[in-house]
Parts: sequence; structure tokens; C-alpha cells
Amino acid sequence: MNKQELFEQIKKKKSFLCIGLDPDISKFPPEMKGIPSSIFGFNRAIIDATADLCVAYKPNLAFYESQGMVGMEKLYHTVEYIRHEYPDILIIADAKRGDIGNTSDMYAKAIFDTLGADAITVAPYMGEDSVVPFLKHEGKWTILLALTSNKGADDFQTLITGPRMRLYEKVLKTSQDWGTDENMMYVIGATQAKELANVRRIVPDHFLLVPGVGAQGGSLQEVAKYGMNSECGLLVNSSRQILYASNGSDFAEAARTETLKVQQEMEQLLQEAGLI
Amino acid sequence: MNKQELFEQIKKKKSFLCIGLDPDISKFPPEMKGIPSSIFGFNRAIIDATADLCVAYKPNLAFYESQGMVGMEKLYHTVEYIRHEYPDILIIADAKRGDIGNTSDMYAKAIFDTLGADAITVAPYMGEDSVVPFLKHEGKWTILLALTSNKGADDFQTLITGPRMRLYEKVLKTSQDWGTDENMMYVIGATQAKELANVRRIVPDHFLLVPGVGAQGGSLQEVAKYGMNSECGLLVNSSRQILYASNGSDFAEAARTETLKVQQEMEQLLQEAGLI
Repeated sequence: MNKQELFEQIKKKKSFLCIGLDPDISKFPPEMKGIPSSIFGFNRAIIDATADLCVAYKPNLAFYESQGMVGMEKLYHTVEYIRHEYPDILIIADAKRGDIGNTSDMYAKAIFDTLGADAITVAPYMGEDSVVPFLKHEGKWTILLALTSNKGADDFQTLITGPRMRLYEKVLKTSQDWGTDENMMYVIGATQAKELANVRRIVPDHFLLVPGVGAQGGSLQEVAKYGMNSECGLLVNSSRQILYASNGSDFAEAARTETLKVQQEMEQLLQEAGLI
Repeated sequence: MNKQELFEQIKKKKSFLCIGLDPDISKFPPEMKGIPSSIFGFNRAIIDATADLCVAYKPNLAFYESQGMVGMEKLYHTVEYIRHEYPDILIIADAKRGDIGNTSDMYAKAIFDTLGADAITVAPYMGEDSVVPFLKHEGKWTILLALTSNKGADDFQTLITGPRMRLYEKVLKTSQDWGTDENMMYVIGATQAKELANVRRIVPDHFLLVPGVGAQGGSLQEVAKYGMNSECGLLVNSSRQILYASNGSDFAEAARTETLKVQQEMEQLLQEAGLI
């Protein structure tokens, strides 16, 4: 899915929501609780209840890997299911990979060719040759960590590395030479909304993947105020707030109710910006 | 395996070699070439041919993930095999993970509990709360990327972030508050041997995992000269040079011959340092 197609989906669905498919079996409803093989059934119920209200799903690989072979199988099933049933939805593998060139090549193959995702999150610490192998895959997206939503973001990402140049700004600037706004996005945490105006000065046209609304406390209003551009340019992620809206057998309905609230707020923000 | 036990193994085997188990099926001998299900057989042959000459094995997860479910199964088999047949060998999952706290918890569970590795490599970009979940696992090692062996290391890792404080030095210093030399190591590329003296000023007692000798061009002599401490303090990794010493059916023998050369060089370096 290219940038224009993504924007079309956003306008069509009146939503720039990405739902994080982070299955924590300890939080599953009673009939599924603690059962790794129920991951696909849980995901499918969530997907079927929300697919008309979001433009992307983002499985975080840690939640699948923690369940070993069964978990990995359910990850594959989940991606296949979305691809088959909802082909217009972007699938982001939240993997935060990054390694020396020949190894990043293998990760790119794993995520794009073998798993079949449309996009992957990548960590920038190892620099250009750790990121470029992902960018070589045509029609796929590389989503580089820039300023993350967690407390530890301040340990290194905001260090001053030059005049008016914190580390995450340097990552944004340097990586402009590696890819374009047609194959790269950036992760900017919603908890850093005040930084979004600054981010937009450096990368006005790139899509930003924004986690941290919901359980982590970020504000959707502020994210839109400082981060939205003329093609929306935002994918705002919510995971726990939607997935575990209820811990009963009505979890899918509760997820839909919660998603609808977010979608309606997004619709209003898109209207206010004159994009729909 | 704790630090003292690791040093004992180094003295016993007269080796501080870590062998990277990075199975690239396109480089396999003819009877295995291109066949994902042959990964375990390949690894087992390499392991049986080299286990008396090295103290650690380091499967890089990218090479397994790129082969999908079959690859993951072979990763599990490989770790089980080493654990069962060679229980005194440290198993390092080279995964370069790192995410927000609750997600890093899941990665730690995946690598330490589910896969059963002794150690994991972790990327520092997301800061303290992305690293601490790994450190909570008693008896396990967290190996933090500091200064890597690839060209891209200079994009961000060597940026000046303060007086006499490049980013990788800041990572070394800051992370001292998170763990100890009993549960943390650092990745320092062999191609950066001249920086090892500097690294040792900041972390005199930590073990360093040093990739980049061999295919990437680093010098073992220089690594030992600037990086060795009174408990050796080094795990030097070699992957391609050993695994693909021959692309014929004699690959395991050729791997042993190559490994023996490295081990003998390491034995001499340990002797010169008065450690054996």
C-alpha cells in the first residue's frame, strides 16, 4: 500500500487508527485465559469487530514470541487472516529490528517475504547499513524509531548532539538520505506531543506512527494539533485500551465500542482539518 | 552461568571464542543447500565439530526467522541440543531486541524462559525501561549494544553528546546504573579495536562480546591487546569464517580446522596475559 492509498483509506474510513494486536493471554476472557492456542481466535474476534474502523493492525512480535512455536504460528495465521479478509488494511510488524547489513537482509526477508507484513518498525542505533536492507523491498514500509513513548526515551533520544540537534532529530535528519516519504515512516510517541511541531519541521511529509495514546496517557487532540499534515500523516496506535476493554466474553463488542469512540474522535479531527 | 564460571570455562578450554550460528541455507553444502529443514543438521555438525574449542554459541535469530516456522523450530532444536549435549557452553540469542517495558518483558520471557538461552543482545535506543526487564531474570545475561562493528556505527554511536562523551560512551556510563558486571555485557565491534582501551576505562570489569573478527576484518591480536582484563573479559565471535570454511560436504571438518586456528591464537594470547 503506497502513501496515496493509505490516505485514501483514512478518508474512506474516517479514521487514522492503528490497532496494536498484542495478545497477552493473562488478560484474555475466561474461556481463553492462559491458553496460547487461543491467540488466533482472540485476534480474529478483535479484527472482525474493528476492521471497518481502523486502517492498520500492528502485531507486536514480542507477544507471539513469548509463546514459542505456538505463538509464532498464531502470528502467521493472524497476518494471513487480515491479508485475506481485509486486504485494504496495512499490516505493521512491530519488531524493532536492526542488525549489520547481511543480517538486516534476513530480518527484512523474515518480515516482508516470509510473514508477509507491509511494514516493520526498525531501531536506528546501528545506522545506515542496518536500515537500508529494509528499504530495498519495493512496496514495503520501514518505520524508524525516532522519539518513543516510554520514560527511557529521555535517556539517549533527547541528548544534545549538536546545535539545536538532539539525537532523535539527528536520526530524523540523517535518515532522510536513506529513504523517502514513500517508503519510510517514523515512530513518535504520543506522550511527546509537544515535540510533534518540531518533528514536522524536519519531516513535514512523512507518515508518523504514534503509539502511546490510551494506556500510556498521550492525548489524541494534541497529537492531531501538532502532527497532522495535508495527507493526515498520522497513524495513531492503541492496543491495551481496545483489546482489554472488557475481560469478559463480551471482549470483542467492548473492543468495538472503544474503537468506535476513538474513530469518532478521529473523524472530528479530520473534519476540523478539512481533510474529509 | 555466572562470570566466574565463564572465566573457568575460558581457562579450561584455553579459548574465549563464541561461534555465531548464523545458518545461511544458500551457503550450505550441496546436499543441504537451499533446504530450510537441514538447518538443524548443519548446526549439529558444526557444534559437534567445535564444542571443545569454544565457550559460547550465538545463534542470530534473523537467520532462523527468515525461514519462517521451520526456521524457528530449528532454532529451538539447536538451543535444546547445545543445552543437553554441552551444558557448559553459554548460549547467546543474538536478537537485538528492545521495546517499552511491558513488551521487553515479553521478549525476555521469549528468549530466557521459552527458548531457554542464557543471554540476549539488546539495543539501547529506548533507554532504561526497555533494558531493565531483561536484567530482572536471575542467572541470565543482558548484552547491550554499545559500539558495533558495522560502518553505520559512525552514524549515531560516535556522536558527541557532551564533554568527552560520545553516544556509545554515554550508553556505557548510563547503563552502569541498570545492572552489574554479573548480569550485563556490552557489544563492542572488533573493527573498533582502538576504542577498546577507552571502553575499558569506563567498564573495566564487564565482559565484552566482540563481533567483527574474520569476515568483517577485525584483528584478534588488537582486541586482546586493548580489551582483555584479569578475567579475560572477552568473548570474541566468529561466524561466517568458521561456518562456511568449506562449501563442500567436508564443511564440519573445515569448520573445526578453522576454529582450531582461532583457538590456538587465543591460547597464546591467554598465556601472554598470564591467565593460563
